[in-house]
Amino acid sequence: MVEGEKGVIELLGSGFTTNIVCATKDFLDRHYENIGSATEVIEVSPSELESIGSVETNDSALAVAAMKPETPPVIGSTGYALVLDDIRDPGNLGTIIRTADWYGIKNIIASEETADFYNPKVIRSTMGSFTRVSVFYTPLEDFIRSLKLPVYGTYLGGEKVHQVKFAPGGLIVIGNESNGISQAVEKLVTQKITIPKFGKAESLNASIATGIILDNLARNSG
Amino acid sequence: MVEGEKGVIELLGSGFTTNIVCATKDFLDRHYENIGSATEVIEVSPSELESIGSVETNDSALAVAAMKPETPPVIGSTGYALVLDDIRDPGNLGTIIRTADWYGIKNIIASEETADFYNPKVIRSTMGSFTRVSVFYTPLEDFIRSLKLPVYGTYLGGEKVHQVKFAPGGLIVIGNESNGISQAVEKLVTQKITIPKFGKAESLNASIATGIILDNLARNSG
Repeated sequence: MVEGEKGVIELLGSGFTTNIVCATKDFLDRHYENIGSATEVIEVSPSELESIGSVETNDSALAVAAMKPETPPVIGSTGYALVLDDIRDPGNLGTIIRTADWYGIKNIIASEETADFYNPKVIRSTMGSFTRVSVFYTPLEDFIRSLKLPVYGTYLGGEKVHQVKFAPGGLIVIGNESNGISQAVEKLVTQKITIPKFGKAESLNASIATGIILDNLARNSG
Repeated sequence: MVEGEKGVIELLGSGFTTNIVCATKDFLDRHYENIGSATEVIEVSPSELESIGSVETNDSALAVAAMKPETPPVIGSTGYALVLDDIRDPGNLGTIIRTADWYGIKNIIASEETADFYNPKVIRSTMGSFTRVSVFYTPLEDFIRSLKLPVYGTYLGGEKVHQVKFAPGGLIVIGNESNGISQAVEKLVTQKITIPKFGKAESLNASIATGIILDNLARNSG
């Protein structure tokens, strides 16, 4: 289920199969040419939209699309993928997907305890980026091992991310909101990196850390 | 109201006056020496805690503290402050406060439409950083003008933040989640900066953008 104008428009222009669009007259008038790819279109009022959906205010549209089959991503030796080691908060997952999309990262590998990609709050927080970034859920250890790529993980006392010379391709592990990277995954980390701290907060939010690391990756590997 | 172990412990060690602490026996046993600064301490069960508070699960503590009087921050010419131009989402505000604390920024100036610092969701998302970062609410235009400092704002087509040589002190403006920086504040921006994009997302979440800009500020002005 995708809610809101931006998300529904992105959905209709994506590779997902859209089964139903429920939309206001105003939305339908403005986006008539995009609606063609939906199997069924139903005109509704904003209050009907809000009663069907999960958000408090929605005066545009809501769509139901078919989930995509999960296939293991093909990760070459010259690109980067994110590895999420138990990101539990749907807002964090959505924001991480959106941020990955900003930095051109197309593949995320997630532990099976990570929040569900299809949770409406995740979809909403991606602001449409769910159409361009795929999340593959799998037990992390075996999958990481099979890729034979450099694995970067964030720790206190690692190399400062401002100085890290990133390899041409690799994995960046983001740990759980409370507990960080699990012991099992830590064993596979080939380089520990640190976001330098200048103040007193004990830690950064997981999605903020992701943004800062991806910015440094883009800058240092350019 | 401050909920959860980390926040309550930070509160008790801070300059706020704590009127009441409601805590489980387990919390009280573990933090006996910190509790002295609270005016009143009440032992409660986890289910009582959850029924008083705003979070679903809380098995540690909840505290009620006195708000601090709002005083205009003194901002010298060699430090940085954040300016929030209508950040409406409490989670974003809390995360911005936490991130500011990580980068050693102590002052935030917020428009009067910005989410309320004392909203429990804001306090919770700061993870204790609300004790070290102050937020001053004021009409932005006059206040910014009075400071006579460089004002950085994020736009498409500004100077790439990776290359910006930041002045020794200044203001960094973060715009509203949907609409960006308001026209009134835009007139006061002295340097437009841009977070380089490598993929296809239309924008970044406001708190993610804050983290990336502060990381570049710390790095480029070091």
